[in-house]
Amino acid sequence: MEKIKVGIVGLGRLGKVHAHNLKDKVANATLYAACSPVLEELEYAKNDLGVQVTYTDYEEMVKDEQLDAIFIVSPSGLHCSQIQLGLKHGKHVFSEKPIGLNIEEINETIQVINQYPNQKFMLGFMRRFDTDYMYAKELVDNGELGELTLVRCYGIDPSEGLESFVKFAGASNSGGLFADMSIHDIDLVRWFTGQEVSKVWAIGKNAAYKELDEVGELETGAAMLQLADNTMGILVAGRNCHHGYHVETELIGTKGMLRIAQVPEKNLVTIMNEHGVVRPTSQNFPERFSQAFINEANEFIDCILTDRQPSINAIDGLESTKVALACKESYEKNQLVTI
Amino acid sequence: MEKIKVGIVGLGRLGKVHAHNLKDKVANATLYAACSPVLEELEYAKNDLGVQVTYTDYEEMVKDEQLDAIFIVSPSGLHCSQIQLGLKHGKHVFSEKPIGLNIEEINETIQVINQYPNQKFMLGFMRRFDTDYMYAKELVDNGELGELTLVRCYGIDPSEGLESFVKFAGASNSGGLFADMSIHDIDLVRWFTGQEVSKVWAIGKNAAYKELDEVGELETGAAMLQLADNTMGILVAGRNCHHGYHVETELIGTKGMLRIAQVPEKNLVTIMNEHGVVRPTSQNFPERFSQAFINEANEFIDCILTDRQPSINAIDGLESTKVALACKESYEKNQLVTI
Amino acid sequence: MEKIKVGIVGLGRLGKVHAHNLKDKVANATLYAACSPVLEELEYAKNDLGVQVTYTDYEEMVKDEQLDAIFIVSPSGLHCSQIQLGLKHGKHVFSEKPIGLNIEEINETIQVINQYPNQKFMLGFMRRFDTDYMYAKELVDNGELGELTLVRCYGIDPSEGLESFVKFAGASNSGGLFADMSIHDIDLVRWFTGQEVSKVWAIGKNAAYKELDEVGELETGAAMLQLADNTMGILVAGRNCHHGYHVETELIGTKGMLRIAQVPEKNLVTIMNEHGVVRPTSQNFPERFSQAFINEANEFIDCILTDRQPSINAIDGLESTKVALACKESYEKNQLVTI
Amino acid sequence: MEKIKVGIVGLGRLGKVHAHNLKDKVANATLYAACSPVLEELEYAKNDLGVQVTYTDYEEMVKDEQLDAIFIVSPSGLHCSQIQLGLKHGKHVFSEKPIGLNIEEINETIQVINQYPNQKFMLGFMRRFDTDYMYAKELVDNGELGELTLVRCYGIDPSEGLESFVKFAGASNSGGLFADMSIHDIDLVRWFTGQEVSKVWAIGKNAAYKELDEVGELETGAAMLQLADNTMGILVAGRNCHHGYHVETELIGTKGMLRIAQVPEKNLVTIMNEHGVVRPTSQNFPERFSQAFINEANEFIDCILTDRQPSINAIDGLESTKVALACKESYEKNQLVTI
Repeated sequence: MEKIKVGIVGLGRLGKVHAHNLKDKVANATLYAACSPVLEELEYAKNDLGVQVTYTDYEEMVKDEQLDAIFIVSPSGLHCSQIQLGLKHGKHVFSEKPIGLNIEEINETIQVINQYPNQKFMLGFMRRFDTDYMYAKELVDNGELGELTLVRCYGIDPSEGLESFVKFAGASNSGGLFADMSIHDIDLVRWFTGQEVSKVWAIGKNAAYKELDEVGELETGAAMLQLADNTMGILVAGRNCHHGYHVETELIGTKGMLRIAQVPEKNLVTIMNEHGVVRPTSQNFPERFSQAFINEANEFIDCILTDRQPSINAIDGLESTKVALACKESYEKNQLVTI
Repeated sequence: MEKIKVGIVGLGRLGKVHAHNLKDKVANATLYAACSPVLEELEYAKNDLGVQVTYTDYEEMVKDEQLDAIFIVSPSGLHCSQIQLGLKHGKHVFSEKPIGLNIEEINETIQVINQYPNQKFMLGFMRRFDTDYMYAKELVDNGELGELTLVRCYGIDPSEGLESFVKFAGASNSGGLFADMSIHDIDLVRWFTGQEVSKVWAIGKNAAYKELDEVGELETGAAMLQLADNTMGILVAGRNCHHGYHVETELIGTKGMLRIAQVPEKNLVTIMNEHGVVRPTSQNFPERFSQAFINEANEFIDCILTDRQPSINAIDGLESTKVALACKESYEKNQLVTI
Repeated sequence: MEKIKVGIVGLGRLGKVHAHNLKDKVANATLYAACSPVLEELEYAKNDLGVQVTYTDYEEMVKDEQLDAIFIVSPSGLHCSQIQLGLKHGKHVFSEKPIGLNIEEINETIQVINQYPNQKFMLGFMRRFDTDYMYAKELVDNGELGELTLVRCYGIDPSEGLESFVKFAGASNSGGLFADMSIHDIDLVRWFTGQEVSKVWAIGKNAAYKELDEVGELETGAAMLQLADNTMGILVAGRNCHHGYHVETELIGTKGMLRIAQVPEKNLVTIMNEHGVVRPTSQNFPERFSQAFINEANEFIDCILTDRQPSINAIDGLESTKVALACKESYEKNQLVTI
Repeated sequence: MEKIKVGIVGLGRLGKVHAHNLKDKVANATLYAACSPVLEELEYAKNDLGVQVTYTDYEEMVKDEQLDAIFIVSPSGLHCSQIQLGLKHGKHVFSEKPIGLNIEEINETIQVINQYPNQKFMLGFMRRFDTDYMYAKELVDNGELGELTLVRCYGIDPSEGLESFVKFAGASNSGGLFADMSIHDIDLVRWFTGQEVSKVWAIGKNAAYKELDEVGELETGAAMLQLADNTMGILVAGRNCHHGYHVETELIGTKGMLRIAQVPEKNLVTIMNEHGVVRPTSQNFPERFSQAFINEANEFIDCILTDRQPSINAIDGLESTKVALACKESYEKNQLVTI
């Protein structure tokens, strides 16, 4: 079977994860080309990834006739234009989340995607490919929990990044806590319930670094979501988790409750020492979701090979972004926002 | 040391719990009298509790000069008048929660309480006397979690009571899910943070019994609270917990997180069988808080003996009721309510 | 109902636990007298326990006609003679474990017990009155685990006592690790299975304090037991538990497995901090078994009041001591010992 | 980089696992040939694995000059001769455990291995490549647990295979419970402690299927091991685990305790339903150790490519087999066996 030739754009932290997966863990893919304006990243591509074909200009890479597909792992602000360009040059496109930063460019991108129905487009909500989440989804779909009434999602980044975040908070453009951290959780709420969000209220508090108040950023925030059929959503997001990377999801249904990673256990090890009974914890997203990243890449490649559309599409990107932006607005105005 | 002679009013499910504690588990108390309009309850007092002095009329009991203190475990609508009457007759008064059903009668009651500063008044927020909650409070007060940013509280009753609740929902006067179930959690939020609630949004969904929509009751609800200093509160309340009685509290602080009963483990037993690895669960509040009820009774008696005011006072009752009523209003109007 | 008047002998660490329970937590008992050769302990009895009648001589106390029952919490070497003396003076007798230090004096004591069938004798294997163990026993008796094939018991004392143990190891007469620590576990194996032990092999290792080798003591040991019907027993005992007091029991049956305190969780609290996900642990036996001590005292008093023999008798003491001594012998000779 | 061409012998349940890994999950290997006397297995190789070169005769396959390495996943009785033959024909050899069934043939095989020091030989104790075990080993090697005093290992197969095992128990030649099930655990004891076993006592009980007594097989067994430096080992093995596949390892050291899979949690999901709080469990070894099998294959291939000897060698196979056979003998004679 012919392997799918992939070109990747962006070789930052997450780009490297994707690149190594495409190189070694995705049996039917070949990492053929890499694009980055950063020369060190292209050196890395050659030396560590064995990629012979490199580009500094994305417009050049998408013209490469050898390439079947593009992996976009560039800064969020570039996603929309790169998706469109990739499709226009006949490539299948995988894009990291978010699909875009504002509703206008996302809608425009969706129009382009719709013009190329024979090419595959997939958005990187990798949690849907995590085996724990897949296991939970199957239980939900089999009715084991009855009808869902509430979904609670935590996404809290490790504290170790907080100090540097504070330092650059004014300069950075994270999109705010909810767009930056909760967008995966918003996707999960939609995925598990099959419902859209109709109303949100978002609040937050800066306590460790009150100076974040001045730049409109948050160390910890919470949002409550009301869905179309009254199903409830609760989001907690943060940047100050001392025990590592806390991603937890709870589903409450009429027949039972279910929690995914109610505590972010790193492995099956339990240590008993002077601190008590200790479960070590996942420390960051590449560790927690290492297999999910592999699985989603395999899925994308398999969609190309078997000619079917990926289950995560541009509408998922659009709707989750709408909710994230509504959370941001709600927090800023401290009032309910209807979507 | 002379024992404190107690008269109890109300011998329903919770009244019996208190009565047995006063009889056998509170070393410095004697259960001297019992009052109830229900004759079976007075028979129970004589035969099962060995109480010789019984009353059908509360006004008679409070005149009994032998009595030092009153335990009020009657229907919520009677609490305020019974508290006042007890105090006016010179008794120390313990009242079950809630202190009252509306703000006016509570304020009136507080005025009466303030007129009798030498008599003790204590409200039955027993969770503050649960050893798990006391352990957590001590850690918080010692700064182990840093500054609190979010408190999440679940209070979900076992499903087994739901069908009968549905049947009588129209007739009953539960005060609504938030007043009925969340008031303990509201007290916990206030206790742990030392802050008052300023804004709430409450939502809910009926899925197992959609007919509850018609009578304005809820099987599952959620509320988000904004406190005066921006600390966040999340409440989930319900009546449909298949695994028992789920009371869980989470504290997120700048230095760590803490959960009390993140799952409602009944004991230290783990069973491994065809269902997987199973922890049995607490089935109802008398089981879960059996020791807390004993502890709070001991505390009340000890306050009398050592002449100090109990730590839980009428203001705690007033403020928690305000928040519960705000949740009810918010749910009914589906909008933010400022307190 | 008349209360049972109890005299206690021995007011060391465990004696104080029993004394406070008899004073405040056992509704039908009165702590009437105390006996100790240690004057401070008698002062404690007067001042902290409110006991008016004190003795320095046990022979005097058992003659006190006011007394109904004796609680023996003296050094193990005195148990047998004190049990006999108490019975001979017409008292009901509760004795802490072990019933005695050698088989001869135990057999002699059993003969005396048999001469006073109308007086109650009970041995203090309090774990049988711990609610976790009772819950497990009920499941076993109901056949939930099928037929038992293996029982594993851990009993490991906290490290904090180890250094002082090492210092006095030569002088002390602990009876060895298995008699000192495992005797409760041996009783549990017999209780859960209803079988007697037929063969044992015991081994051990000193690693933190190798000097214990010289005085024949052990910091950690293990024994494997073969029971009459081939059911297997595994014991681990130790004095060097850094996370507190680790008492764990596992039951493997043909239909399932069950663990009591698979980790010695102190309460329902989970802390998440820089150490990971931490469950605090029980620190010592008075903490872990505080309620069990109360329950067993209530049971003893209730046996007197309702004129029935306690479920834990002298044969339980005899058989468990036989196994403990066989473990000691097996360890010393490093060979299998048949009982 | 040139890929290593591998020929596999044996395509039973575990053979298929290895074959799929070599095909898709081991980046530097190519599954080039397959050998089996079973025609269905060769069909499977062609159709499901895409292997073009197949053999019914192992002697033919080892002569294939295209092949670099052999993967032996045949019945245990063939391992020794196939290892020798592979080496004599210049191939690198990976063999599933056990290396052989008796000490003589293993010693003979070791002599052959020693004659080909430039070819790699690796034995399939895959648990050493499980990330949980590797994490624990690193902690041990870093001294986090101090000096080890006791290692406890459980290996219990799911009940679902037991009935068929009973049916064929007379005819089969499992080598007995300890050789069949405990050999991985014996390897772990040696790996973690760095010590050899000097003395064993093994016992067992048939309760669900007492007819196993007649054919000398066991449904549940236990062995206690004394190591050269007095470190203790406890093994429990069985074939009747209702909750799935229970592989658990505990390390007790002078500074702390550690458990790997103290319960065999399948994933990070917790379900709360009418059964209580439930953690789903691993159901069988391919599920539990799926990643470990991939890791060990990668290690073997990497040893070839980087010209270094694998960390698991023939001596590990010899010593673990010695202990397994001693357990068998000890059980049969019901006495201590010195190795």
